[in-house]
Amino acid sequence: MNTAYLDMIQGNNPGVTPVWYMRQAGRSQAAYRKIKEKYTLFEITKQPELCAQVTELPVKEYGVDAAILYKDIMSPMVAIGVNVDIKPGVGPVFDTPIRRMGDIERLHQFDPTKVDYIAKTIELLTEEVLDVPLIGFCGAPFTIASYLIEGGPTKSYNKTRGMLISEPDIWNGLMEKLADMSIDYLAMQANAGANALQIFDSWVGAVNSAEYEQAIFPHMKRIISTIKTRFPNLPLAMNGVGTDHLVHIWAKLPLDIIALDWRSSIGEAKDRGVTQTVQGNLDPAYLYADTKTIAKAVDEILLDGVRHGKHVFNLGHGVFPEADPAKLHWLTDYVHEKSRELWARESH
Amino acid sequence: MNTAYLDMIQGNNPGVTPVWYMRQAGRSQAAYRKIKEKYTLFEITKQPELCAQVTELPVKEYGVDAAILYKDIMSPMVAIGVNVDIKPGVGPVFDTPIRRMGDIERLHQFDPTKVDYIAKTIELLTEEVLDVPLIGFCGAPFTIASYLIEGGPTKSYNKTRGMLISEPDIWNGLMEKLADMSIDYLAMQANAGANALQIFDSWVGAVNSAEYEQAIFPHMKRIISTIKTRFPNLPLAMNGVGTDHLVHIWAKLPLDIIALDWRSSIGEAKDRGVTQTVQGNLDPAYLYADTKTIAKAVDEILLDGVRHGKHVFNLGHGVFPEADPAKLHWLTDYVHEKSRELWARESH
Repeated sequence: MNTAYLDMIQGNNPGVTPVWYMRQAGRSQAAYRKIKEKYTLFEITKQPELCAQVTELPVKEYGVDAAILYKDIMSPMVAIGVNVDIKPGVGPVFDTPIRRMGDIERLHQFDPTKVDYIAKTIELLTEEVLDVPLIGFCGAPFTIASYLIEGGPTKSYNKTRGMLISEPDIWNGLMEKLADMSIDYLAMQANAGANALQIFDSWVGAVNSAEYEQAIFPHMKRIISTIKTRFPNLPLAMNGVGTDHLVHIWAKLPLDIIALDWRSSIGEAKDRGVTQTVQGNLDPAYLYADTKTIAKAVDEILLDGVRHGKHVFNLGHGVFPEADPAKLHWLTDYVHEKSRELWARESH
Repeated sequence: MNTAYLDMIQGNNPGVTPVWYMRQAGRSQAAYRKIKEKYTLFEITKQPELCAQVTELPVKEYGVDAAILYKDIMSPMVAIGVNVDIKPGVGPVFDTPIRRMGDIERLHQFDPTKVDYIAKTIELLTEEVLDVPLIGFCGAPFTIASYLIEGGPTKSYNKTRGMLISEPDIWNGLMEKLADMSIDYLAMQANAGANALQIFDSWVGAVNSAEYEQAIFPHMKRIISTIKTRFPNLPLAMNGVGTDHLVHIWAKLPLDIIALDWRSSIGEAKDRGVTQTVQGNLDPAYLYADTKTIAKAVDEILLDGVRHGKHVFNLGHGVFPEADPAKLHWLTDYVHEKSRELWARESH
């Protein structure tokens, strides 16, 4: 197995910066688009062989050093009794939004048998298909809650923060249920063989640091501490979009990896208290540019990563559908080649 | 005239923190909703008397210390030859998105006669209607460009940053045209009698600081320097959403006011080099809470403002439609009362 990704995080510097891309299995790939013509996301994830194939696609096409399980952050909802549909161009849609204590009481304990196809896909991938580590993941309670509460697309997340601020009992009740789900769901993935885990708190950048410390941090700490106690050797990552103002708080959590979006500075991560491996953070919009322009931006990120000491290369946000696969393949090769040079120079 | 807003910014501390709210004239008001049953936003803005009435509504209903001209950041587009429609729930929509140099060449110089109703509304408001200062405004080039380029709703602004990164000539051509428009449009509002100006760069938080410095800062500097040279006594403000990582760059611009969203810290503004008046920044989601909870958050913001020395109270983002007008009125009174106490204590 190519262990560059795990080695980097576990402190055995492989002399090369490992690479993977958020949303690497997706619409930028022709093979994926062809599969999506026949099946929805949930239909793919319910078929372990097909889901494993989709998960593996970018490993073959882009040459990345890690695979991330193909599924949605809403995939486990069915296992706590929430029916969800993913509407193209809209996102996750639920029968009823969550607003009252009664709505929360309807959420039941995570039932792994309801999503046993996820465990099966992980087993298939790690035992047979992949020759790189597999990253399992979950959506964090705030981000899941934002979908449950808003009940539709939003840029502001006012209703979610409204509950956080004005209904602390309902908020904490919901966070506790979702934190329980996160723990059980991450544990299921770890037990099935996932080699690393990532928590996607995609929209938590909508809260300020005071709101985070008070209403979110305790729940995140419980999830992360529990998982690290039960699976001490499994790398655990956290990421979000527009979360620059929260990174100094994340740094206090027992995480192994802190992923930065394209607006954060890897160079400043240490100043903010980040001792963990940093992951990121090329602006995905660079995929529109020529390779010379991309290389210049990548060089700076790699140098920042080498100076930080522990770095996994990634985009600062997901691969977008129009991204050119050839350019992503070139990018992987370029990061490998250039980072070897930089780490070698560093060690002299 | 109630000059608390102007006095605070111009260094004559009025002993009270002035208040206004972004999107204070809007769907939270019953009188506004009634007018909107009959007229679209553009129809309102084309009728100076009606538009003045809408602009004044929150001054009467909420007791704020400044009015902001009712219109959209897309209102001036018709004056450079761009037809725009505002689709409810979607936002501004254009005939054709801007992608090529040819698209930019079609944009012509700002023709003030095409939006003379805006100047007329300002004259009416400042000469007859208002007893508080009137804030005129424009959308900044990046934010206007993002609508022109994306051609539809987005959370990522990938296409906009894609042009910024990969097509610097087209990008700079577009920025120059839109900066010219901003200057002419702000000057028109100043000449018509606006007492202050604000630049809304709502979505510029989508770029990182390196992209901002290279591709946006020079254009913003030209707009702001030109306006400040021509109207040295007119307060000029800037705001954005999720722009915490850009505030230290804004601090270098000859602005009078830097508005912070609810995720930025007024307390840290000085550390970031902000010598200007700070404006903000109560999380609007507090409008869902009881007055005791709101008061606690407001107290902290007011104290930060007093410590900073120059502060205009506002929300950290616009008033949302479900906000309770009675609570906004209470909030204005509370800010006045509490801040009087704090400034008086400060001066002893």
